[in-house]
Amino acid sequence: MRNICLYIAYDGTHYSGWQKQHHTKTIQGEIEASLKRFTLEDISLHGAGRTDAGVHADEMTANFQFVSRLSCADIHRALNSMLGDDIRILEVKEMPLDFHARFSAKGKEYHYTLFTGPIMPPTKRLYLLHQSKSFNSEPVQECLKMLVGTHDFSSFENTGTRDKTRTDGKGAVRTLSVAQYIQIDESTFRFIFIGEGFLRNMVRNMVGSLLEVGRGKQSVEWFSAAFMTQDRNAAGPTAPAHGLKLLKVIY
Amino acid sequence: MRNICLYIAYDGTHYSGWQKQHHTKTIQGEIEASLKRFTLEDISLHGAGRTDAGVHADEMTANFQFVSRLSCADIHRALNSMLGDDIRILEVKEMPLDFHARFSAKGKEYHYTLFTGPIMPPTKRLYLLHQSKSFNSEPVQECLKMLVGTHDFSSFENTGTRDKTRTDGKGAVRTLSVAQYIQIDESTFRFIFIGEGFLRNMVRNMVGSLLEVGRGKQSVEWFSAAFMTQDRNAAGPTAPAHGLKLLKVIY
Repeated sequence: MRNICLYIAYDGTHYSGWQKQHHTKTIQGEIEASLKRFTLEDISLHGAGRTDAGVHADEMTANFQFVSRLSCADIHRALNSMLGDDIRILEVKEMPLDFHARFSAKGKEYHYTLFTGPIMPPTKRLYLLHQSKSFNSEPVQECLKMLVGTHDFSSFENTGTRDKTRTDGKGAVRTLSVAQYIQIDESTFRFIFIGEGFLRNMVRNMVGSLLEVGRGKQSVEWFSAAFMTQDRNAAGPTAPAHGLKLLKVIY
Repeated sequence: MRNICLYIAYDGTHYSGWQKQHHTKTIQGEIEASLKRFTLEDISLHGAGRTDAGVHADEMTANFQFVSRLSCADIHRALNSMLGDDIRILEVKEMPLDFHARFSAKGKEYHYTLFTGPIMPPTKRLYLLHQSKSFNSEPVQECLKMLVGTHDFSSFENTGTRDKTRTDGKGAVRTLSVAQYIQIDESTFRFIFIGEGFLRNMVRNMVGSLLEVGRGKQSVEWFSAAFMTQDRNAAGPTAPAHGLKLLKVIY
């Protein structure tokens, strides 16, 4: 038995997210179908996590086990020749048998990017959120400081999915080492989150509440109270998917 | 009668180019259809030029004349609310009656961008040309020097379109003030061309020949001879459309 890890970049625009589903195109589904085409085996990919419909990835990881003698270079070539150009395998690596893309991960880095100019450049519309109204970054920076460290992130966890994401006994407690908002260029700003683990929709939910503060609709005090109360209903809406990118999985 | 100029950005991916055509989606066709919807007039747009299918624009210009009293702000709002988000009107400006987007133009700036890493990032695939094999920029820089100035660009003019583009009595003589190849980041490089005017497909044809030189398939001497001979058949192929962007029209 061999254990193979795929490093994967994708444009999530035309996919219903990472996780395989019937009757809809997903990243996992496309890669598994391609693996089957040249290995003739039913291979199950173990992703480092799930990304929602429309979310992008610079470097997602997924591993699978199989018995074939195919070299990593052959797998790499075969997959990229079969997959659409909105999914690219960056690297194929042989791993120890106990490696698991999700359970071995030490953390993840996510970016959420805003375009703040008055009119969204068409070539960026699928990758950046348009934030055209006035946006005040100072209170946002205050809120971000609260997020760094180990906290119960229940307020930013999507309800209805607890049973699925709560497999590790940690409840909704997660640790963020980085929660930043930085300027990229004149009209582009980015949230950067690095953490050991993220609850389902956590980044989009944190950003949704941070946007409320930046837009002046809510105060730093509101954010603090919403965070502390550990109640999803107290926090802001979920930010749109297309501004989010999984930058990498950290091992 | 009033004369209105539109400044337009677009992602050309899903369009058959700028120019209106029957039975196919074009930028001009979409904007004219939107204008008709709220002015109830048949309005003809005069574009500053044409871009091919798949070519993008940061700031294309087009003017039209009409008698309506609609304010520029109203036209702006109405157009952007009706057009798809891959076409954006950046600005609507009232111009003197003798302004013509094409004939009044003093020049244009085009960018053609390459991604030189081994694997094309999915989110850039529609906007950059993938040049993954080794590429030598030194001879390319030599060739670019030959292009600056006033020359006969017949070797980079698409045949079969002469009658349409040769309306100004200049033949294939054009003047380039800038022809550069610069590094944008580790794996991104860009050709920049600024000139008073460009023949049909001229940028893509120049880039096609420059790529032959950078890839080591042809020499600087070959490029020089191909350019001097004023014969399209002597030069290289036409570079793919999606790497090209009309940056702006200069007035």
